Amino acid sequence: MSNIAWNNLDTLESFKKLQALKDCVSVAKELSGAEAAKRVAEYSIPMADGLVYNYAAKQVNSKIISIFEELVKESQLLEKFEALYNGDVINTGEKRMVLHQLLRGQLGKDVVADGVNKRDFYINEQKKIAVFAEKVHSGKIVNEKGEKFTSVCQIGIGGSDLGPRAIYLALENWAKQTGNFKMDAHFISNVDPDDAASVLQSIDLSKTIFILVSKSGTTLETLTNESFVKDFLKNAGLDPSKHMIAVTSETSPLAKSPDYLEAFFMDDYIGGRYSSSSGVGGAILSLAFGSEVFDDFLKGAAEEDKLATEKDVRKNAALMDALIGVYERNVQEYPSTAVLPYSQALSRFPAHLQQLDMESNGKSVNRFGEKINYVTGPVIFGEPGTNGQHSFYQLLHQGTNIIPLQFIAFKENQTGKDVVIQDSTSQTKLCANVVAQIVAFACGKNDENPNKFFAGERPSSLIYGKQVSPKTLGALLAHYENKVMFQGFLWNVNSFDQEGVQLGKTLAKSVLSGKMEGALKAYAELLIK
Amino acid sequence: MSNIAWNNLDTLESFKKLQALKDCVSVAKELSGAEAAKRVAEYSIPMADGLVYNYAAKQVNSKIISIFEELVKESQLLEKFEALYNGDVINTGEKRMVLHQLLRGQLGKDVVADGVNKRDFYINEQKKIAVFAEKVHSGKIVNEKGEKFTSVCQIGIGGSDLGPRAIYLALENWAKQTGNFKMDAHFISNVDPDDAASVLQSIDLSKTIFILVSKSGTTLETLTNESFVKDFLKNAGLDPSKHMIAVTSETSPLAKSPDYLEAFFMDDYIGGRYSSSSGVGGAILSLAFGSEVFDDFLKGAAEEDKLATEKDVRKNAALMDALIGVYERNVQEYPSTAVLPYSQALSRFPAHLQQLDMESNGKSVNRFGEKINYVTGPVIFGEPGTNGQHSFYQLLHQGTNIIPLQFIAFKENQTGKDVVIQDSTSQTKLCANVVAQIVAFACGKNDENPNKFFAGERPSSLIYGKQVSPKTLGALLAHYENKVMFQGFLWNVNSFDQEGVQLGKTLAKSVLSGKMEGALKAYAELLIK
Repeated sequence: MSNIAWNNLDTLESFKKLQALKDCVSVAKELSGAEAAKRVAEYSIPMADGLVYNYAAKQVNSKIISIFEELVKESQLLEKFEALYNGDVINTGEKRMVLHQLLRGQLGKDVVADGVNKRDFYINEQKKIAVFAEKVHSGKIVNEKGEKFTSVCQIGIGGSDLGPRAIYLALENWAKQTGNFKMDAHFISNVDPDDAASVLQSIDLSKTIFILVSKSGTTLETLTNESFVKDFLKNAGLDPSKHMIAVTSETSPLAKSPDYLEAFFMDDYIGGRYSSSSGVGGAILSLAFGSEVFDDFLKGAAEEDKLATEKDVRKNAALMDALIGVYERNVQEYPSTAVLPYSQALSRFPAHLQQLDMESNGKSVNRFGEKINYVTGPVIFGEPGTNGQHSFYQLLHQGTNIIPLQFIAFKENQTGKDVVIQDSTSQTKLCANVVAQIVAFACGKNDENPNKFFAGERPSSLIYGKQVSPKTLGALLAHYENKVMFQGFLWNVNSFDQEGVQLGKTLAKSVLSGKMEGALKAYAELLIK
Repeated sequence: MSNIAWNNLDTLESFKKLQALKDCVSVAKELSGAEAAKRVAEYSIPMADGLVYNYAAKQVNSKIISIFEELVKESQLLEKFEALYNGDVINTGEKRMVLHQLLRGQLGKDVVADGVNKRDFYINEQKKIAVFAEKVHSGKIVNEKGEKFTSVCQIGIGGSDLGPRAIYLALENWAKQTGNFKMDAHFISNVDPDDAASVLQSIDLSKTIFILVSKSGTTLETLTNESFVKDFLKNAGLDPSKHMIAVTSETSPLAKSPDYLEAFFMDDYIGGRYSSSSGVGGAILSLAFGSEVFDDFLKGAAEEDKLATEKDVRKNAALMDALIGVYERNVQEYPSTAVLPYSQALSRFPAHLQQLDMESNGKSVNRFGEKINYVTGPVIFGEPGTNGQHSFYQLLHQGTNIIPLQFIAFKENQTGKDVVIQDSTSQTKLCANVVAQIVAFACGKNDENPNKFFAGERPSSLIYGKQVSPKTLGALLAHYENKVMFQGFLWNVNSFDQEGVQLGKTLAKSVLSGKMEGALKAYAELLIK
């Protein structure tokens, strides 16, 4: 890492050049003119598994992209990525390597830590999970009565919940349609006791395997919910130790406990929000759909990771997406970004990206702990289309702020069911709406009535593919992980810690211990009986 | 309405005074000092059904509140509300009255339109629904085989989906616990065919009543999904007309069709996002929980509406919330707001508020169609706590922008199930976290390590109550409707139309008809087979 310089964005010459290019592209003009079709064809980057990233409706042109190229070199983005996947300590605050890409492939050198080759360690854990899942599916591991398990329930919060949940929901219908559906999955996350109670009352406890997920083995919500679940199991006359497995680190208190049928391991080099490719996602997805499906998911992610090493920004979707995002945030000064998947399967994917992005890059100090003088991560929000069109799109089209958009769409649906109304299928209507929205946002519409006037100039990108499948989803997940990583490098922040969640935890402990005064006490008296 | 002047916010003297008060309150100081407890006690407004709105952690003081008082008078906020509930044509763009408050009570004069007393009309429709629901529950209305219906499924999008869905989810566990649960409810909204297919494959079609909800009777997604459902029913050997009811306007094509068991009516004076109190929410909630539960919901809303007529801003929670929001948006220049319910029951309440707020006030022209020179509605997003704490709170605490927060919390959970771990229940832990977060956001924390430094000064409000119940939920819903209305008055926009959704619809039709060129054609070729 000796040749890498970690500099703040505002010290880079190429960034200064970029700042001079504010508001220099009209997407309305670019997409209204005779050259529109050519632009749509050219501003396009192939991704893994047939996905494509199209940025024709973004506020960029060849001049801006040439500055992007300078920025990539000056900020050594690809060298930094290389350092990361070769095992340098990129998470400087916590003094940890960052190895989630290694869960799904090996981009560089062997990474050895704690005396083991980490790639071998991760593969071995995946194999252990595959063997376990096969035993559950084939009836070699059964409940107290010798019956097969039919359901699986994850107990975890944050990264142990949002990613795996989004992926499960994205593949549930696909798995049913393709014969890969093996067990239905459920999730308990919130410390609100109604979350656990509601899930537990809706499933057959006697045929459910619970997965306790906590890297440290100390997450308050997760341990509380574990006890909640154990109480329920005992009250139903069941033996919790016959119904629970753990996904944790080898050094955690959960690692070698007789309370679990088995424990699968991750390590400190896998951040919670980057852990879907580890046992955190692997156990529940392998049980729900079979380990081959999870393997395909990892293959899609690995393929996309490989593409993220491409040096030419015009061929590297994650890099281009990251650069456009920084241009939108730091030059155009847009404070938020909407993620809009036109696919019901991706209903919770925006919630996962919300964590991935906001927890990684919502920082005010650089990686050396120095306060920085520019804005970092935006607010990320979104809901599936076409639902969103009937909800918050009014503000996106005619509100007083411009909000950059990220559309995601697929040519085919998952269930194979469809209906023709007014000469088109629902799937065609869905896709027609994406197309219409991109152009409406970009080009707007003149109208004598100012209430029906659309200013346009609202930039969007589009990731599209054939269908939401395991490989596609892996590629999509890796794309966003890599985008967030590149943006973290540009902003010179540590995208892999989360010190901002600590203060709330500390104060909550003060409230629970009763050792509090002032405002804390005053608020506690309002709420706590 | 002759005495009311509709002026832009930036023409008001009191707003200019408010602009001079930027950054004049430190919530860290206010809540760290000896007077903190006094402030928490004083900055508090009772709402309906025992709810309380507390704004002690907002960036206001007595000086700012006195300017708020001037602003209320100068902009005639209460007179405008009075004009609205007395039936003036407040939705000027569409030339319509705005009568959703009349669905749940009568605040002013009789409102007569189309030759009928509107309050009588609304009550009559509610009674029709109550009678219908009772017949379904008692087995007077049954399926083809004479069996009782056990499920209900709403087909609707936007306001016909988000509000009713959020309310159903909020009351499902409460109803199960209190013996009010009568039918399980499902929702089909997206034109993505996998949405409908997935729901239909998960329910017993033969025992399901479908509610088709479309005011105009022409919503493309809803009509498409209706056909989709009818195909499924026919393929299952069922007669759709024995399984469907409609909620629509009297003039819609659905109103007198033999395709439906019965039709319940709303009218043009009820906007989609304000329609949860009409048959749009009433039919599904009365079927799911009984009409008494829906009545209680309406009572809570009516009680809260009444409080919104209170002239003293210190006693009017919706008014205070609205004014603080405008101060945060137009003086403090914060572009987004997070809604954070510490209640799993309210998991989809932020999605409803996202539509309510962003579709109402995401406008760039005033009610006369003139472009305005200040920002209007913010981006609204949110997820339930404590889940959000493990997701995007990092950015809220340590990101480079301040995002105002709205906490919602309850002393008791709904299911009555709980567990004591480390000397406290889950419910207590949940509440302790709300308390801790409010103080952490406001006061921050000094630390030698800048990575562990919290600047604080992040304002939040708290709405709290005993438990999520029908009345509480009605009050909560009405609070936000009234807040959004007052903000619309302040920004001088029409909060009751949504012209911004039209262009996308028009262009989607062009794509579907094949009559397209340029960018529209180029994008269509990428996505549509």
